[in-house]
Amino acid sequence: MAKNGESPGTGAFGSGAPDSGAPGSGGPRAGGLGPVNPTASAAVTHRPLSGGDVRLTGGLLGGWQRRNREASLPQALRQMETAGNLDNLRLAIGGTVDRYRGPVFMDSDLYKTLEAIGWELGHGASPSLAGFAAEATALLEKAQQADGYLNSYVQATRSQRYQRLASSHELYCAGHLIQAAVAAGRTFDGGALLKVATRFADHLVDTFLGSLAGLDGHPIIETALVELYRQAGTETYLQLATQFVNQRGRGLIGDSGFGIRYLQGHLPIRESATMAGHAVRALYLEAGVVDVAVEIGDAELLASSIARWDDMVATKTALTGGNGSRHSGEAFGDSFELPPDRGYNETCAAIASFQWSWRLLLATGDAKYADLMERILYNGFGAALSADGQRFFYVNPLQRRSDHFENDDPGRRRGWFSCACCPPNIMRLLASLEHYIATVAGDVLYLHHLAESSVTAPLAAGRFSLDVVTRFPWDGLAEFRVSSAPAAECGLAVRVPAWSRDMAVSLNGERLESGPDDHGYLLVRRRWQPGDVLTCTLDVRPRLTYPARRIDALRGTVAVERGPLVYCFEQADQPRGASVEDLALSPAAPGPAAPSPSPAAPAPAAPGRAGLRDREDALPGIGQTVVVEADAVRLPPASSAGLLYSPLPDPGLAGEPATAVAIPYFQWDNRAGQAMRVWMPLGPPGGPVTRDNPAEGRAPLPTQDE
Amino acid sequence: MAKNGESPGTGAFGSGAPDSGAPGSGGPRAGGLGPVNPTASAAVTHRPLSGGDVRLTGGLLGGWQRRNREASLPQALRQMETAGNLDNLRLAIGGTVDRYRGPVFMDSDLYKTLEAIGWELGHGASPSLAGFAAEATALLEKAQQADGYLNSYVQATRSQRYQRLASSHELYCAGHLIQAAVAAGRTFDGGALLKVATRFADHLVDTFLGSLAGLDGHPIIETALVELYRQAGTETYLQLATQFVNQRGRGLIGDSGFGIRYLQGHLPIRESATMAGHAVRALYLEAGVVDVAVEIGDAELLASSIARWDDMVATKTALTGGNGSRHSGEAFGDSFELPPDRGYNETCAAIASFQWSWRLLLATGDAKYADLMERILYNGFGAALSADGQRFFYVNPLQRRSDHFENDDPGRRRGWFSCACCPPNIMRLLASLEHYIATVAGDVLYLHHLAESSVTAPLAAGRFSLDVVTRFPWDGLAEFRVSSAPAAECGLAVRVPAWSRDMAVSLNGERLESGPDDHGYLLVRRRWQPGDVLTCTLDVRPRLTYPARRIDALRGTVAVERGPLVYCFEQADQPRGASVEDLALSPAAPGPAAPSPSPAAPAPAAPGRAGLRDREDALPGIGQTVVVEADAVRLPPASSAGLLYSPLPDPGLAGEPATAVAIPYFQWDNRAGQAMRVWMPLGPPGGPVTRDNPAEGRAPLPTQDE
Repeated sequence: MAKNGESPGTGAFGSGAPDSGAPGSGGPRAGGLGPVNPTASAAVTHRPLSGGDVRLTGGLLGGWQRRNREASLPQALRQMETAGNLDNLRLAIGGTVDRYRGPVFMDSDLYKTLEAIGWELGHGASPSLAGFAAEATALLEKAQQADGYLNSYVQATRSQRYQRLASSHELYCAGHLIQAAVAAGRTFDGGALLKVATRFADHLVDTFLGSLAGLDGHPIIETALVELYRQAGTETYLQLATQFVNQRGRGLIGDSGFGIRYLQGHLPIRESATMAGHAVRALYLEAGVVDVAVEIGDAELLASSIARWDDMVATKTALTGGNGSRHSGEAFGDSFELPPDRGYNETCAAIASFQWSWRLLLATGDAKYADLMERILYNGFGAALSADGQRFFYVNPLQRRSDHFENDDPGRRRGWFSCACCPPNIMRLLASLEHYIATVAGDVLYLHHLAESSVTAPLAAGRFSLDVVTRFPWDGLAEFRVSSAPAAECGLAVRVPAWSRDMAVSLNGERLESGPDDHGYLLVRRRWQPGDVLTCTLDVRPRLTYPARRIDALRGTVAVERGPLVYCFEQADQPRGASVEDLALSPAAPGPAAPSPSPAAPAPAAPGRAGLRDREDALPGIGQTVVVEADAVRLPPASSAGLLYSPLPDPGLAGEPATAVAIPYFQWDNRAGQAMRVWMPLGPPGGPVTRDNPAEGRAPLPTQDE
Repeated sequence: MAKNGESPGTGAFGSGAPDSGAPGSGGPRAGGLGPVNPTASAAVTHRPLSGGDVRLTGGLLGGWQRRNREASLPQALRQMETAGNLDNLRLAIGGTVDRYRGPVFMDSDLYKTLEAIGWELGHGASPSLAGFAAEATALLEKAQQADGYLNSYVQATRSQRYQRLASSHELYCAGHLIQAAVAAGRTFDGGALLKVATRFADHLVDTFLGSLAGLDGHPIIETALVELYRQAGTETYLQLATQFVNQRGRGLIGDSGFGIRYLQGHLPIRESATMAGHAVRALYLEAGVVDVAVEIGDAELLASSIARWDDMVATKTALTGGNGSRHSGEAFGDSFELPPDRGYNETCAAIASFQWSWRLLLATGDAKYADLMERILYNGFGAALSADGQRFFYVNPLQRRSDHFENDDPGRRRGWFSCACCPPNIMRLLASLEHYIATVAGDVLYLHHLAESSVTAPLAAGRFSLDVVTRFPWDGLAEFRVSSAPAAECGLAVRVPAWSRDMAVSLNGERLESGPDDHGYLLVRRRWQPGDVLTCTLDVRPRLTYPARRIDALRGTVAVERGPLVYCFEQADQPRGASVEDLALSPAAPGPAAPSPSPAAPAPAAPGRAGLRDREDALPGIGQTVVVEADAVRLPPASSAGLLYSPLPDPGLAGEPATAVAIPYFQWDNRAGQAMRVWMPLGPPGGPVTRDNPAEGRAPLPTQDE
């Protein structure tokens, strides 16, 4: 297996170039290598654009990436000082601070920050980011012990190495160090951080390869070692990752106090049929499983991961793409256990799931993985940041009640956390977001996510470049404007999202009558010319979404989605003081045809769309958005004197016609911290019902018991 | 305020009387004092039968009490050795064991066991129970320090006293010691344990009365000190309890790591409008609040507790009477946050709520408190024990899914716990159960709970004795056979349960046309004669119960109840292999008139009863029961390939007619650990629907999107 990643060797700390302040406008990058770069011999269907380039040039995602650079990352840099992450390293070196601060995995917050800086410096120079990276790297070099070991907690507290791996996070921290170093190595670093990481990895190989010890309670070392193998070409890294994957579930890991399922220690991974235990751990492990499977060519191992992904999506995933139904153990729950109010849906789990799906997309080329990535990106992940990029959610529920206590999760977003795993994790994903947009398979350029961007793919026949012009997700229209193309025929494939049954397509103004292929992509093959424009129009009109019968916590409710966006009903937007807790959607009511902001989509309002109206708007605290109004029923408020349990069905379906107002879920909690619901009670079919005018056909409400 | 409890001074350890083996058949008891005995000056409406007597002579509750003595308590005695509770005391004394075992509150398990023994020895002699009590009391006497302090953890580990009261449970353990000593003092003890407890209480008074220190993270010391004041007459105990109640919520308690709401430290108790934080702590605190309020005559304090009780019952109580919606923090949740699957409903919370309601019942005389006690007793509490009395639930959910992992709560009942607060708590309540049956108010004997029993009340005009003959709750018929009565007119009052709209009453065979009074009791005043028989017939036919609209987790479901019993649908009882997860009740279907086992209740089947049929049965592993069959729809199983979220409403309401079978919730988990549901999806009105025969009047199921 060949080493296919090269350290560019051209970057330098503290580049003299002025801070561009915006991604996408910076200097050249070395081959555009992203976080996941399978070797030439890996068993993958798609390949990322190694040697190509993708830039987010604007739009919602480009704006998120810019906000990450300008608002979020500076906050992380400050926190690395104030929360003690850097001081812990200084203490390990023998500095003057007097005690270790924070959880045992404080190093990992720094590593994720460094990884984010790495990807950002690939977008353009920044003296502040580069300066921080240089200082931190110098600290790490000094703290690293002679044999390569590096962990500020163990060193500063003079603890024994590897004695409590179920909870010490030593290899977890090592994994994030490696990932940071790979990012640095693929963008700006002259090799300093990569040298620290490879010394640590070599130490891990020496210590654990061929041994029954070394399983960390929190996976990520697996995927990190595979990527370092991809970067450095050292086969023992892959071998150690493979060993860790194969050893899990065989009684080797001990217990961190939460049971062995928490640590995915309950079953060998190949025998496990469903996601269990701590969601972030389980999901990072799967990323490593896929990485190992494709690099060693183990189809059975890959198939087991795919089976768990299918089960997760069929039984254990929130509408927002979130995972982890339980606060207890931050864990996956039973099948169909998906409470909107107490769903944990940790931000890190969304990121880990996104990373797992990307690896499965590369392995298989199936659009369903990109569908989930999109659902996560715009919803379960997107909501983790405030509109200003300075506050973060750790837990991402789909409901907050009006009397919810603020300091109980779900509370408000916070500026940082004592367990700060999520904020820098958000930053490293946003900083590398463009790498998840496009792939190449043979002579076809695949575009998985619509975003204002420029894409250059190195096809065998030559470079294929295009600009994507779109206001997606606000609008369903996207133009793919070819700026250069190979002389030979090649393909351009665009994912048809699962949420859009119809995607209208035209080429240079002429409608194409083609639909998605078996993998979910619309593929156009031709000899492309500069100036060619492929136009796709997705139906982003608001629509209703119903939960499966087995989701007990969502019975009798309905949600509103629009394009890839899950919507939510936040108290701040409801008219005339109506409580969001006393509104039921009344979707079957006849309503005016929904105007669509996109020129296509001529269909009139129909079941599934009726009673929903959208409009572009800008809201204080939120900014640009598309608001959806829904026909609803306003129910009498619950009386505190009312019976919680009654021999009579609740007469709550009787009420006055009303309009309920929804905004994208990712924009919630940017005003006062009030009630929010994604899933709304489903009012009576046939429109608003009043006590004087009961809907025909429904059983009359009983007025007394027998 | 007068001392009104007297140590009988006649009991002795290791009584020579043979172990009767059954409660109710033992020797005389000293005045029948129970766990709660307000002073003569207390502001209460009802008084327990001080100087009277109640015995459970058979039936379901009498059987529970006998099982407690014969099966559960011997298990506790063994566990006190094997789990280390006694060894911890030996270690504190300077014994040969080498280390403290278990949580810091291990002493409290022993104290609860001793309290249970105390009440049991009031039922009749038992050399084994008395011998254990004598040995444990001798250990406690030796372990108690010169100034009265006693705590095996602090002493054995040489920790500092009172340094971490938010989590050290020192006063919590002291409270349970006091309660055990009060029980012993009111039944069998010559005063040895009471002397230990009063020495500790005197030390607490010396240490904390008038100080700003002393608030324990886990309340119970408040109610314990008041009861010791009632027993011993020492006013400073009441003063210290009052101080602890008034000090809570004023920033004096610190934090145990779970936030101050967890410890009820967020608001002064008089300003708190809703139950919050750790449920057991919050509920024990309320018992102390009521005790203090009635003893110091603080109507405002009592009113605040009543307001929280009303709020709890209106917004935060499971159908089983359970409290605590969250595993995280074992805590109360938001209003209407009542998930059946993840509801925590700790057994200790049920016991604490039962104790709080009893105190409010004494204070006010309102039947609603007895209604909740009954709901708890037969459901949320009753389910905590296996049929054989040897296994215990800590967490009491209302649903377990078929794929639920056994070691996740709700799993199976267990023989003991590393945190074993619940089993001996169950035992002390069951051993004292007869004390919660009856009260006296003026010249009226109140019977709050129907149970096979004999009751003697000391009315001012003379003793009023009767035997209660009933098969309740299996049957709704109860006869009150008067065996002796005062010469003067007096009253007999029987609670009319909230679940029974009609209670037929006859006196010596003649029907009485009277209904419940304003407080919920049927009161018959006359000059009673020996041989008089009052007969009450409650309607225990099975009935449907609907959740309030605001309970999101129960939307679209219905439950079955029968008399005081909540029912559940356990997989083991469903016919022909139908999965309990694919059944929906179809209650509006016309069904045969429900036969009633009681002679009254002539009404034909009607909405709320239709489609439900009951029959007495005996089931393997369970024994005597009444099974309820319900008209249902059997739905197609969920496919793992199905969509979790869909643009179409789930067509799951279409299915085949079926019969769903329910048993009392308290009897669940006595067969294989399979799926269980209390709340069942509510099928379509109008009876079973098949795809070929859709019910009229309902919107047709869409077959495609637009």
